[in-house]
Parts: sequence; C-alpha cells; structure tokens
Amino acid sequence: MSTDPKRTSVATEDPPPPTDHQVPSGGGTVAEPLGPVEPARSPTAAEEARTLAAGNGTASLSTIAVDPAGYPFGSVAPYALDDEGAPILCISTMAEHTRNLTADPRASLLVAEAAPSDEAVAVGRLTLVGDARRLDGPAADEARERWLAAHPEGGYAHFGDFHLWRIQPRAVRWIGGFGRMDWVDADSWSAARPDPVRPTAASAVAHLNADHGDALVAMAQVFCGQLDATAALAVRIDRYGIDLQITTPRGPAVGRVGFPDRLGSADDLRKACVERTRAARARLA
Amino acid sequence: MSTDPKRTSVATEDPPPPTDHQVPSGGGTVAEPLGPVEPARSPTAAEEARTLAAGNGTASLSTIAVDPAGYPFGSVAPYALDDEGAPILCISTMAEHTRNLTADPRASLLVAEAAPSDEAVAVGRLTLVGDARRLDGPAADEARERWLAAHPEGGYAHFGDFHLWRIQPRAVRWIGGFGRMDWVDADSWSAARPDPVRPTAASAVAHLNADHGDALVAMAQVFCGQLDATAALAVRIDRYGIDLQITTPRGPAVGRVGFPDRLGSADDLRKACVERTRAARARLA
Repeated sequence: MSTDPKRTSVATEDPPPPTDHQVPSGGGTVAEPLGPVEPARSPTAAEEARTLAAGNGTASLSTIAVDPAGYPFGSVAPYALDDEGAPILCISTMAEHTRNLTADPRASLLVAEAAPSDEAVAVGRLTLVGDARRLDGPAADEARERWLAAHPEGGYAHFGDFHLWRIQPRAVRWIGGFGRMDWVDADSWSAARPDPVRPTAASAVAHLNADHGDALVAMAQVFCGQLDATAALAVRIDRYGIDLQITTPRGPAVGRVGFPDRLGSADDLRKACVERTRAARARLA
Repeated sequence: MSTDPKRTSVATEDPPPPTDHQVPSGGGTVAEPLGPVEPARSPTAAEEARTLAAGNGTASLSTIAVDPAGYPFGSVAPYALDDEGAPILCISTMAEHTRNLTADPRASLLVAEAAPSDEAVAVGRLTLVGDARRLDGPAADEARERWLAAHPEGGYAHFGDFHLWRIQPRAVRWIGGFGRMDWVDADSWSAARPDPVRPTAASAVAHLNADHGDALVAMAQVFCGQLDATAALAVRIDRYGIDLQITTPRGPAVGRVGFPDRLGSADDLRKACVERTRAARARLA
C-alpha cells in the first residue's frame, strides 16, 4: 500500500508493466488533437472514492472470524458516513460480524456501484480498511441519528440488541473500473468531500446530449483541440468538468472540458455549462 | 460455529433468547388452523444456500490483507461453482485479493440476493468460508471453461495475468432473511443440490395467483387446516412445496402445502400443482 501523498493526488496509479490489458479491444485508432488542448482538472482518487461512498448505503463488511478462527468473514452491512468519512454501522449482538468485531476490531467495508452481474468488475468500487469500535452515550445517540437519516427503514436501530459502531479509516483502496485504481491514505479520505454534482450528473448528461449537441461540438473543437469535430457526446460530468466522446472525420476521440472553477453545488452546473458554451463560441467566432 | 449435523437439517436455528425482534411489527393476530395441518417438508439450510449461490454469479471476496497486514479485505469477485459447490474464481495477479490469497489462503465469499438498499438486511445471503488455492494444468483449464460458461463476458480469463482459483469450503453461514439463519457444514453444502424449480418459481407464483386462486383456497382449507379460508396467495414455491398467505374471517394466516414427492426438475412443477389441486378438491367434495 502506498500512502505517499503524492500518489493520492492523481486519479490513477503509475502505469503497470505491460500486460494483455494494454491490447486495445477494438483495435481501432483514436484521432489525435489538431490544436492545443486546454488543461482540465480531474477528481482525485480520494474525491472519487468519497463520492462513491456517499452515493451508496449498503456495503459488504469484512471481519476476522472468531469461528472458524482467523478466517476473513464477509457480511452485509448498511452504513452511513460521518463528516470525516468514517463509516457508521448499526449491528446486532446476535450477528456474526458483531461477535467478530468485539474480539478483533480490524475491518474493511467494500462499497460497489450497482451493476448487472456481467459488469461487476467494470464499475467503481472501494475498500475502506480500518478499526471498528462500539460507540456509547451521546456519541452513539448522534451516530444513530445519522445512521437513521440514511436508513429510515432501519427501525431496528432502536432494538436493544443493536448498537452503533464507527470504523476509523486507515486506508482506502479505490478502483474506478478496469485499470483505474489507487490507494488513498486516511488523511486524504477524511479531507475529501463528495462531489455535489454527482446526484444530478446523469440527468445533466442526458439533457446536454439531447438539447445541446452543438455546444458540445464547439467545446470539443476549442478546448480539446479536435478542430474538425463533427459530433460530441457528454459521457460524464463532475464538479471539475465534462468528459466527451468526440466524432471526427479521422475517427473517434475523447476529451475533457474543465470548468473555470470547481463547482460548489449542483446549482452551479447549469451556469458553468453556459459559460463554457459562450467561451467556446467566442473563440470560434 | 456449529457443525453439528443435526442443526443443518433444519432451516432455522433454535429460537434465540427473547429480544425486541419478537415484537410483532403490525401488532396483529394470526388465525390458528381449525383443522389438521398436513406436514410439509421445507428446504434445508444447505439447500437454501446452494440454491442462492447457484442463482448468482458475483460475490464479495474477503481475504487477509498483506498490507495493511492482517486486516480483512473485501473485493468484488465473479464466481462459478463446481459440482461440489466449491467456488471457482478467475483473478488477476495485479489485484490485491490475489496478492492476499497467495500469502494466506483463508477466504470467504459473500453472496447476496439482489435487493434495493433499504431491503439489504431482509434478503437471503450466505458467507462461504474456506481455503483458496490456485489451479494449474488440466484442472485450471476445466475450471476456466466452467467459469467462462457462467461469465461469457469475462474474456479477460485468457489474459496472461489471470489465473483460476478454487475455494475449498469449510463452513457456510446462511441467512434467509430477518431471523432465519444457520451454519451449514462443508459436507452438507457439498451434498446439497440447487433447487431446479427456483429459476421459474417467480413466474409460477404469478401464474398461480393470477389464474388459480380457487385452487389455492382449496389447498389452504385442506392441507393447512384453514377450513374457512376465503382467499390464498402463493408467496414462494420450491421443490418441496408452496408457501401460502391465507385470508380468513378470523384474520390472516400462513401455511405451507407440501408436494407428495420432491420435484426433480422445473418441468415437474405443473404436474405437482395439478395433483395438489385435485387432491384438495377430492377431499372437499
């Protein structure tokens, strides 16, 4: 595991040694930019991971089993996150994982994007490794409130055999999909904030593609150096920019359009898209 | 963990000590049978678990981490099962879980029914605990074929850095939902067979409820002792019988209708339902 802070400021690890993974599946070529490409910031691995964790509520909890002693034991655990990104669990003394954590605090929480079975290794996921401890008194009350806000269906949180636990993060392994991965250290995890744009990003992508194809083409020409772009599709939006799939007479290309400023809320997204469109058109005029 | 074989022959554990779990959520009463109840066999915990595992293909794999050393580590792993119910994995040497298993073979595989987040602790799931080892030679080729049959999308199984692994089961923890759970020993797991009726059970349930409500009422009256049943809904079908939700003037009830013989294939289901309907009507005539 690397906890070198330099490595957590980029979204991918150093390139691995060449393997079969590097063979392009379609065998096609990608059109290179014809003009200058404007630099665009991307989310860090820590931001990607915190955003993924914030958008989910159920994880696989791994503990060290009491019996069979020492084996890793996976179970299902609904969770909430506190402000520092520490997972809060609400678990029963009758459950194996609680017995295990009582004997050994070491734990990990696997959070994965929902995916059909045949795409399970292609989607984003993370493993938060840390130490769990049971909360009592006011800390437990506060944690229960937070957990119930995330799980209004979890009325059993008030049962006498359920208790609140908190996992102190030690390191987070993030995988963005096939070949995108990194370790995130505990400080970077704690400092990162979930992307406020993510909850509405999918509908924004759909809206841009349905109604603003011309604007996306202008952005591809101006900011991605694809001067001869004839079509462009938004494939993802985050607080730092828009990822594009671009069509040119020379073949397909990809590009990224960065927003001038990091967006602080989902409400800023529309304004930022309008600004990028105007800036692109001004440069083309 | 109990590996007492007696405990694996029933679908639920001995009743736990009274807790808040015993408080009926609706506060309602359940109508007791007015007549004799015909005994009906239910799937064993081993059969329930094997059926659940056979109907899924992606699991959470827990391993013991090399780094941070000794921590349990959860990851995503597509799997297939061999005839003995041993999970077959196809994993990359570039992945953390492979590094972990190479250093320590202890593993568990968590398989859960798909569920919306707010029902995650209500659905069936199992944790298979065992020892993983990498396969080589003909055993690897056979395992790869089996794994690819379950994961036709997994062309990466042919990449040079992917290898086949097999987990030798040691014990299985099965949870059927809130309050239904048991340990299954390795021999019972290996001997159990997935329920052949399960893949078509949901459509059979829908068909019975849509078109054969009268037959279900007759079964409820005759086999479940609910002599005054006015309505009955199938809620689940397995190779041993049908679970019913029954309406009576005295309130709701539940019941189970057992098939005379264990069904050997999904094709036997229709015949068994017709037989139970005729038997019920003959007794009412």
